[in-house]
Amino acid sequence: MSVVANSAGEVRFDFDRRRRTGLDETVFAQGKSPSQLEAIFELARTQGVPLLITRLSAEKHASLTDGWRESLDYCAVSETAYLGLEASLHAVGSPDAARARVAIVAAGTSDVRVAREAERTLFFNRIGTVNFFDVGVAGLWRLTQCVDQIGRFPVVIAVAGMDAALPTVLGGLIGSLIIAVPTSVGYGVATGGHTALNAILASCASGITCVNIDNGYGAACAALRALQIPPSPAGPV
Amino acid sequence: MSVVANSAGEVRFDFDRRRRTGLDETVFAQGKSPSQLEAIFELARTQGVPLLITRLSAEKHASLTDGWRESLDYCAVSETAYLGLEASLHAVGSPDAARARVAIVAAGTSDVRVAREAERTLFFNRIGTVNFFDVGVAGLWRLTQCVDQIGRFPVVIAVAGMDAALPTVLGGLIGSLIIAVPTSVGYGVATGGHTALNAILASCASGITCVNIDNGYGAACAALRALQIPPSPAGPV
Amino acid sequence: MSVVANSAGEVRFDFDRRRRTGLDETVFAQGKSPSQLEAIFELARTQGVPLLITRLSAEKHASLTDGWRESLDYCAVSETAYLGLEASLHAVGSPDAARARVAIVAAGTSDVRVAREAERTLFFNRIGTVNFFDVGVAGLWRLTQCVDQIGRFPVVIAVAGMDAALPTVLGGLIGSLIIAVPTSVGYGVATGGHTALNAILASCASGITCVNIDNGYGAACAALRALQIPPSPAGPV
Amino acid sequence: MSVVANSAGEVRFDFDRRRRTGLDETVFAQGKSPSQLEAIFELARTQGVPLLITRLSAEKHASLTDGWRESLDYCAVSETAYLGLEASLHAVGSPDAARARVAIVAAGTSDVRVAREAERTLFFNRIGTVNFFDVGVAGLWRLTQCVDQIGRFPVVIAVAGMDAALPTVLGGLIGSLIIAVPTSVGYGVATGGHTALNAILASCASGITCVNIDNGYGAACAALRALQIPPSPAGPV
Amino acid sequence: MSVVANSAGEVRFDFDRRRRTGLDETVFAQGKSPSQLEAIFELARTQGVPLLITRLSAEKHASLTDGWRESLDYCAVSETAYLGLEASLHAVGSPDAARARVAIVAAGTSDVRVAREAERTLFFNRIGTVNFFDVGVAGLWRLTQCVDQIGRFPVVIAVAGMDAALPTVLGGLIGSLIIAVPTSVGYGVATGGHTALNAILASCASGITCVNIDNGYGAACAALRALQIPPSPAGPV
Amino acid sequence: MSVVANSAGEVRFDFDRRRRTGLDETVFAQGKSPSQLEAIFELARTQGVPLLITRLSAEKHASLTDGWRESLDYCAVSETAYLGLEASLHAVGSPDAARARVAIVAAGTSDVRVAREAERTLFFNRIGTVNFFDVGVAGLWRLTQCVDQIGRFPVVIAVAGMDAALPTVLGGLIGSLIIAVPTSVGYGVATGGHTALNAILASCASGITCVNIDNGYGAACAALRALQIPPSPAGPV
Amino acid sequence: MSVVANSAGEVRFDFDRRRRTGLDETVFAQGKSPSQLEAIFELARTQGVPLLITRLSAEKHASLTDGWRESLDYCAVSETAYLGLEASLHAVGSPDAARARVAIVAAGTSDVRVAREAERTLFFNRIGTVNFFDVGVAGLWRLTQCVDQIGRFPVVIAVAGMDAALPTVLGGLIGSLIIAVPTSVGYGVATGGHTALNAILASCASGITCVNIDNGYGAACAALRALQIPPSPAGPV
Amino acid sequence: MSVVANSAGEVRFDFDRRRRTGLDETVFAQGKSPSQLEAIFELARTQGVPLLITRLSAEKHASLTDGWRESLDYCAVSETAYLGLEASLHAVGSPDAARARVAIVAAGTSDVRVAREAERTLFFNRIGTVNFFDVGVAGLWRLTQCVDQIGRFPVVIAVAGMDAALPTVLGGLIGSLIIAVPTSVGYGVATGGHTALNAILASCASGITCVNIDNGYGAACAALRALQIPPSPAGPV
Repeated sequence: MSVVANSAGEVRFDFDRRRRTGLDETVFAQGKSPSQLEAIFELARTQGVPLLITRLSAEKHASLTDGWRESLDYCAVSETAYLGLEASLHAVGSPDAARARVAIVAAGTSDVRVAREAERTLFFNRIGTVNFFDVGVAGLWRLTQCVDQIGRFPVVIAVAGMDAALPTVLGGLIGSLIIAVPTSVGYGVATGGHTALNAILASCASGITCVNIDNGYGAACAALRALQIPPSPAGPV
Repeated sequence: MSVVANSAGEVRFDFDRRRRTGLDETVFAQGKSPSQLEAIFELARTQGVPLLITRLSAEKHASLTDGWRESLDYCAVSETAYLGLEASLHAVGSPDAARARVAIVAAGTSDVRVAREAERTLFFNRIGTVNFFDVGVAGLWRLTQCVDQIGRFPVVIAVAGMDAALPTVLGGLIGSLIIAVPTSVGYGVATGGHTALNAILASCASGITCVNIDNGYGAACAALRALQIPPSPAGPV
Repeated sequence: MSVVANSAGEVRFDFDRRRRTGLDETVFAQGKSPSQLEAIFELARTQGVPLLITRLSAEKHASLTDGWRESLDYCAVSETAYLGLEASLHAVGSPDAARARVAIVAAGTSDVRVAREAERTLFFNRIGTVNFFDVGVAGLWRLTQCVDQIGRFPVVIAVAGMDAALPTVLGGLIGSLIIAVPTSVGYGVATGGHTALNAILASCASGITCVNIDNGYGAACAALRALQIPPSPAGPV
Repeated sequence: MSVVANSAGEVRFDFDRRRRTGLDETVFAQGKSPSQLEAIFELARTQGVPLLITRLSAEKHASLTDGWRESLDYCAVSETAYLGLEASLHAVGSPDAARARVAIVAAGTSDVRVAREAERTLFFNRIGTVNFFDVGVAGLWRLTQCVDQIGRFPVVIAVAGMDAALPTVLGGLIGSLIIAVPTSVGYGVATGGHTALNAILASCASGITCVNIDNGYGAACAALRALQIPPSPAGPV
Repeated sequence: MSVVANSAGEVRFDFDRRRRTGLDETVFAQGKSPSQLEAIFELARTQGVPLLITRLSAEKHASLTDGWRESLDYCAVSETAYLGLEASLHAVGSPDAARARVAIVAAGTSDVRVAREAERTLFFNRIGTVNFFDVGVAGLWRLTQCVDQIGRFPVVIAVAGMDAALPTVLGGLIGSLIIAVPTSVGYGVATGGHTALNAILASCASGITCVNIDNGYGAACAALRALQIPPSPAGPV
Repeated sequence: MSVVANSAGEVRFDFDRRRRTGLDETVFAQGKSPSQLEAIFELARTQGVPLLITRLSAEKHASLTDGWRESLDYCAVSETAYLGLEASLHAVGSPDAARARVAIVAAGTSDVRVAREAERTLFFNRIGTVNFFDVGVAGLWRLTQCVDQIGRFPVVIAVAGMDAALPTVLGGLIGSLIIAVPTSVGYGVATGGHTALNAILASCASGITCVNIDNGYGAACAALRALQIPPSPAGPV
Repeated sequence: MSVVANSAGEVRFDFDRRRRTGLDETVFAQGKSPSQLEAIFELARTQGVPLLITRLSAEKHASLTDGWRESLDYCAVSETAYLGLEASLHAVGSPDAARARVAIVAAGTSDVRVAREAERTLFFNRIGTVNFFDVGVAGLWRLTQCVDQIGRFPVVIAVAGMDAALPTVLGGLIGSLIIAVPTSVGYGVATGGHTALNAILASCASGITCVNIDNGYGAACAALRALQIPPSPAGPV
Repeated sequence: MSVVANSAGEVRFDFDRRRRTGLDETVFAQGKSPSQLEAIFELARTQGVPLLITRLSAEKHASLTDGWRESLDYCAVSETAYLGLEASLHAVGSPDAARARVAIVAAGTSDVRVAREAERTLFFNRIGTVNFFDVGVAGLWRLTQCVDQIGRFPVVIAVAGMDAALPTVLGGLIGSLIIAVPTSVGYGVATGGHTALNAILASCASGITCVNIDNGYGAACAALRALQIPPSPAGPV
């Protein structure tokens, strides 16, 4: 068993996870102290595995020691970081946008931070993406201009806040797997993203799946699971 | 003051309301006993005014005495009834659909009962309507086929349950006053209509107004208020 | 199609919206970075269209570059700004309060910030308003003194927090279209404005319409839609 | 200690309560079986004390044995019953409406069932009341006609559902102690009475007190506590 | 009508309120700017009436101009201030604790800030109080030591957070009018005070009244209303 | 592994559970059809193990085939049944009330059904109990009469609805392990038992544990876990 | 456009949907009257397309006319029906369980009704499934016995109520696409399925997707979307 | 009675509590001012009793006077402090980990702060503990590695946020008393810890007990109560 515990006994790290689930270990930085994070970084470096870090706020990133901070490939918009990814990409090659199999669709400019978290998670896992941002259905023509193009991707991550009508409209127009991510954009009844979440779950379009509010990372992981599905044989199965 | 109280002191009836607000007195039957309702009917007949009754369930309607039940023009779908409306229409004329100024748009077949409550309320107030039913946005083409036609009506009542994406999409395509009515159609997170309500309030389209869940009557009253707006003068006001 | 995308692909701007819905493009500043905002300003200036910006906090306003900040007509109370409005008003004329068709009624002094957002949105769209502030029904005489005057306006925006009883009382006294805006003023059960919102939706007065909590902008847009309603012909329609 | 337990050990009855709190023992029938109720009746009869029973549904009342059912003075509207009250009134005299010190005000006809529970509870405690029903503020003139009369009662029980604006308006017009009872009348956001409850608690009028939804009994008990307050001495205290 | 509007039209002040309801005008400072507050102070000074100000945070108090800040009698615990009260007390006399008719009972030390708001409001209205603090029922002996003493006051304000069991226990032991104030003390399910509020409303003790969370001011106003009740005549009424 | 699946593959039964957790397999009847239940009964009889069945409504019990219905020892109050328990008790002996180690305390008569579910679950597991019913703290003397007796039991199950103040008061008076069960008794804010649940969780008494609303079975299982705790050695551990 | 409207204008039917989204038209029977349903059946038969009907309660099924009722292949457990499916299967062949690509996993026996809705929906779309029922994690060994077998299916539908821990545990053990369906099984805080829903969305396992409570149909549609994903090319994409 | 009140009358301190309930007095620092805290410290020092202080934030700790701050044994992770504990331990001996009877299990690294509050509370009461951290079930192998070891402790405190599946899985594998503590770790639907709380209460494992969100202190107190249970006699009781 490739389980490694650090000295303080507060972290148990699993380097065998990819074999079992196809997903690499990821570090959820929220609620962890800088020193806990750095202990994890050290462990990963020792083992020679790349890390994806999510929910790493700019403040916490700034509070890391210089050495570790400079080792990270950090994105302030999505609050994500990569550690040791270059070596990995060097070995297996970078994702190729031209062969991308996932479209990331965002309803508004304010949803971009969540969309970028999904994009960065997929890139870390060597999957290219194509983005369609600010295509919310309150200005329907923005979506109809590109819906055929979106429908050519087998997996679509649809990021939307407020009333989150975008996934519903998409769901009636394309046959792709749709993974919807509600966002906490908005005020009043939209505060916190619960209205967006519920609207997606109650969607009158069929077969829309959903993840937690603002969970771009989770949507990307679901896409990774879906992309591992082997081709269907012909006929009924 | 044209306020009339019945003998038991449990009902105070206002026959002067039309003058003040332009809306006739309406009877909300839910929570009233058959005998309370019949006392109100008697009062109205004595005063010679027509009545609109809402939320009159088939069971309660059936439990009225034969005389009163037969006097009512009852609609089981919308659970509404008219008392003494014919005389009124004889005097001022029936609504003329060809000159209708309100479109009633319903997302699904299950929303029809609420749409009909709005339609019947407007008819009672001598306003004709045109209906566009089962045009929910999960099958967008159903709406795009008729959206130009809908946009020609100055007032649009949009009835939708579940995720209620219809008013948002409409709001980006037409300039009419949109009065949205969330409905309690659905299950799980859609139960009770709260998701539909919140989705409408959080709509990313501008200037959508809303009334209570399943309140077709209220939407019709709001339409009546709007139709009393005198024409705008030219230029900025 | 007059849709313009900026270089980063995060904003799609629609300059054709007025033709379709009668409402100009508006920028919702919350959740947008100063640089995203300035990219939008640049786009608008290039196209020669005026902009309304809402939810622009004093902090974000202060963080804009000097050039853009000075170009804005900013109101700290309502957190709104105009860009390039003067030229527009020069062409078509300023709103004339004497010919105003919208009354803005606010229950308490704390509701003024929301009322001002509605007022500024209407002004931007060349509609004059008359304000009736601090007329909440806990001191009923404050409202009864001016209710006849309010009732002469065809459209009334009623802004109220806490228990939001104002729209209900207004609704029984006047026949105008009433667009109620719940506010997040208050504490305890009033926190966030949900009680005000629900009280408005549950109003026992007929035909009150509602928008999201603190959404003065949305109420103004609804008023704009209503003011486009052409005059009613005589007789039943 | 005047505590009496029945044989099965499921009921402990307190006949000493009046001395301590000024309120008689009351039986809350909801959730109790007919046989449990009859055991309590027997206990009360043996002790020679009168009983007030609340939340006794017509179905449960009908399922009592003939002897006990006929011993009860039952009111189907309020779902309350008296046992052995006549003897008590014979001894101390009936309440005298002309000297009544409590006004019961109900916003709508559907609120009457709760108002009657309060009225019956006060009668049982030998306090007369005067009722003002169907005076909700959506038709303000109904209230203003009688508000001076209401204000002459030192204690006012105000029963209202939906948006419950009545207590707020009353609170600004009179100086009486106001005990508000929200009711579960209504649908959509009014369902269950939570909006009415919150609106009362968030009231912008000062010093409105509140009890649980539909709790006419509790409001009456609070009134009884208030009526025991001895007269104020002159000057500041 | 003694209604005075300030120049900006944002405040309407009512100096006639005491006559109607027995309560003086009070200023709710939350949500008002320092300049709005000072305009109100000026108005009150001009009219020669004392003011009670509530929810005046230490920060806002510090931001007032020196002149006004020094004119206020400020209490940082309760966040209340008096303006011009001394003259008033000079005329009519200070409250006399020995003749106090209101007991203020607080469950925990953290509830004291709310209890003090009630105490200060009553003092402003020339009513003396006696305090019983930190007598929550988790240490029952603290309450039983003083319950007889508490029960001698005709009006009891009971302040409690968390599970707010104190009013229930009090309600079974004394016959006074109990006005319960839930507080927002606590974390987890106690956050915001909703559990305390609901526990009070659901109390199995009879006749407990309630006001909004943290609303010590409202409880005091309710006490003032109750203390105006004239003495009961003998016999049933 | 002693896992047995029935033919239809809808039930997997575990007869090895007692060894692992000390608790026997129990059948939760709600949501299971009579034929599913009878398939389980058959399996248990074949294996020769006794069964406890919970949430078996009187209607479902009546719909079982005569043979199985007569084999059950059914209690309509608690909606529980035993199958094959007699043989088991014959082997190991019945619980002895005189040596009982669990007290079951219920606040009101309406809470008895939940208390009985706990009592029956413990009896099935050969643990005797002593009941203290109708000792809610609104009549504090009912509790103080027996609190010393209750405190002699090492484990106390405290069942209470509405505001559930009973566990808090108990928690300050005795040192036993307290397992509180909120019940869904009550109306208005007490509906469904959420207020009781939250009040228990927010209790200001220390170390009160809680289970789901109406979950007498779960409280009994927790008691069984606690009674397996071996004696503490002397001194700090 | 293959859109067909029925005479009453209440239904707009889309027979072109399969081409666009790969999913056939489905009829949601809840909220539709028997006559509305039969009008739809007639339309489908005329067009020669098979129909899947969901949420068709046994009562509504029984109320259909004999002819239509006998034409349906009805399943009372899942409340689903097929119309005209045999002909379709005759043409393209039945699903072959041996080549099934979807596993349906249910935590408890009570979750089977929802699992069967998914199974029937997939069968209608010519996709075979293999079921793993009653493998909830409270008896972990039930799941660990078959988890390797489950992990061989590229798509797993995981149905669970109460605390819905099953999808989380599965998510850490297998790499398949997991579509979780919360169910409304349970009482107290589990009532309505909201706890199960939230637990799934908050899952600490990565990449779990979710649909609405009890929405077996939606989960099956999402599986259909996923099974259309073409095979991944080798290397990073 | 060993109740001591401080001069200001805002604190009533109980030094007799250990005798009654077996638990020492604890100070909940949240909501108390530094000077209130220091008054309590003084009281405790005078009486010669040790104190446990919880929810003492680093900020508040820093704001204490130097003398008191240095007297405290403060832990910033758990926000707890001891006052005067050394003398006490000197007298009775320190807890001995080797003889520990409580296991503290935490699902994730972010839950450690709550786990440490439980650990520190138990240490204060002279009970040793053994910790098992970061063993959440999304990586099931982390738990299965140590579950047998955990099951050897008679009392297990299980700390988990998000979907809190850990207690459910534990409950099916071991027979210890399980006291679960939900934590507020997470975002979206996990915010505030309500999902974790409800998942624990709805657990399909039997006999899991629960305390308030983040309440490590309460869990420790419950463990203390449980550890006082005397040994079971043999046979049924």
